[in-house]
Amino acid sequence: MHNDTMVTLVGLVATEPVYGGSAYGGAARFRLAVTPRRWDREKETWFDGHTSYYTVWAPKALGVNVAASVSVGEPVLVRGRLKVKEDNYDGRRGSSVEIDAVAVGHDLARGTSDFRRVTPGRPGAGESGAFGWPEGGGTPPEPGARAAVLPGPVPEPVPVPPF
Amino acid sequence: MHNDTMVTLVGLVATEPVYGGSAYGGAARFRLAVTPRRWDREKETWFDGHTSYYTVWAPKALGVNVAASVSVGEPVLVRGRLKVKEDNYDGRRGSSVEIDAVAVGHDLARGTSDFRRVTPGRPGAGESGAFGWPEGGGTPPEPGARAAVLPGPVPEPVPVPPF
Amino acid sequence: MHNDTMVTLVGLVATEPVYGGSAYGGAARFRLAVTPRRWDREKETWFDGHTSYYTVWAPKALGVNVAASVSVGEPVLVRGRLKVKEDNYDGRRGSSVEIDAVAVGHDLARGTSDFRRVTPGRPGAGESGAFGWPEGGGTPPEPGARAAVLPGPVPEPVPVPPF
Amino acid sequence: MHNDTMVTLVGLVATEPVYGGSAYGGAARFRLAVTPRRWDREKETWFDGHTSYYTVWAPKALGVNVAASVSVGEPVLVRGRLKVKEDNYDGRRGSSVEIDAVAVGHDLARGTSDFRRVTPGRPGAGESGAFGWPEGGGTPPEPGARAAVLPGPVPEPVPVPPF
Repeated sequence: MHNDTMVTLVGLVATEPVYGGSAYGGAARFRLAVTPRRWDREKETWFDGHTSYYTVWAPKALGVNVAASVSVGEPVLVRGRLKVKEDNYDGRRGSSVEIDAVAVGHDLARGTSDFRRVTPGRPGAGESGAFGWPEGGGTPPEPGARAAVLPGPVPEPVPVPPF
Repeated sequence: MHNDTMVTLVGLVATEPVYGGSAYGGAARFRLAVTPRRWDREKETWFDGHTSYYTVWAPKALGVNVAASVSVGEPVLVRGRLKVKEDNYDGRRGSSVEIDAVAVGHDLARGTSDFRRVTPGRPGAGESGAFGWPEGGGTPPEPGARAAVLPGPVPEPVPVPPF
Repeated sequence: MHNDTMVTLVGLVATEPVYGGSAYGGAARFRLAVTPRRWDREKETWFDGHTSYYTVWAPKALGVNVAASVSVGEPVLVRGRLKVKEDNYDGRRGSSVEIDAVAVGHDLARGTSDFRRVTPGRPGAGESGAFGWPEGGGTPPEPGARAAVLPGPVPEPVPVPPF
Repeated sequence: MHNDTMVTLVGLVATEPVYGGSAYGGAARFRLAVTPRRWDREKETWFDGHTSYYTVWAPKALGVNVAASVSVGEPVLVRGRLKVKEDNYDGRRGSSVEIDAVAVGHDLARGTSDFRRVTPGRPGAGESGAFGWPEGGGTPPEPGARAAVLPGPVPEPVPVPPF
């Protein structure tokens, strides 16, 4: 938990999220495309920069909910731990770049979302089959991950001028 | 645009987002509560750390969609620029901590979301009235902010073992 | 350790780092000024944006080394956990914004640095008195914080064109 | 400048920084190893996690100063833009992971540093020869990158208890 490289990606879902089981427990996997925008001073116009692709792993309940909620082409934010793996399969060498996600959400800069909280303990989000993941895949997130409720009265900010 | 302090917050919405107009254009404003979780090695249990509160400003279409989609108590990710302002109102001095958001989303670690893309040019998301913001507040995001579509065929990652 | 708000600040040291002991162990404290730069499209020139100030706490050996190495006006990077505290002293209310640093370094975009590794176990960096911190303040960083040596042969990147 | 993926890496320099010219101007290049630390609850001990390797590009004056200041094995922080490139050389496919650095510094958690500011306009830091980079490589950083001096009196934080 020390010295993890935390990163936030804002991009478009490039492959359909698929939930599956693995040796480490269930997770959803998808590819994410991130394209920065550049300003051309001469032409005074924006243009697309280089697109980077990442493989996102969303574990447990996060993965269940991602598989139930997210489709190809949708804009999302992904927060997680960055990992670069040197691979060597079939005589081909190269790096694969992966994110172990801790939070994923639809980007409201692009549209609206209708959110439904999933009761912890009843991960249900994807009681289905529609998505084809294995029975029991939807284990709840580890209990330490997040505070569930607001801790009390909200302190007001230093007064600011009204709108 | 140089040397901005970008930060990602994962927390709970602590006050109802309100959309309003200002000298700088329309924006939604809400307070966000962020609570880290700590591990007690002796008791072998998780406990809540100190809760930090932030004032989030979501401009233009992002603000319209936030006001239309987000309610108190909901878990969200917020990505944006961090600012600390030294204030002095009513003889009280102190800092206020603000985020100029560039992206906001419901945290799928906590539930599911049903996303609907808002056609750029027809920001409509929350045609006012219901949320009480001023006419014309829902201007589209600045065109340079984000690539709208996937740029082409998705390169496959270096092959990985199947699930 | 879950859901900490990690942030990196790039700015100028605004007050002389002071090392002292506290209930939680020794730490160096200083104020940091962060100023983004904005581009004025009309005038085609850069100008300074709003300056944010942060209180940085650098614990243990990091604090000892910061106190021994860093002075007012120097450019630094600070990586750490962001905290906002609602305070109420002397009838004045407001937030203070603090960073619990995990890493600090001089910004080489601005100059050069001559680095000397401090042998773990002999934190010594600031065996002194010159800085006025208490005897024994220089405890080593917690052992889990960082890998000390390179783990082995460095994989070459996918070949790239030479310069 | 929109939607860049900013990331901060804390790791060990894995290859000697080399400064060279390119079509885009001069830059220093080196490989960086980042190793998270994990806690083994059963054994109650820390162990090294998977090491990720990155190729860091430090442009212009930052690159000159990095080449003059940084050596293999030294601990550094690197702040910059993350890019993943799909490559295909010699029939081998894979990603290379690169950071376009905006700031680099020695990690004071590990040792002390003696910093010397390089006067803008006289980038000189490492007037070549010794490091073998091309004449004229040491161009100054782009003027918009950073505020050079403190903007004025430092606001005191909300009062905190003394040490």
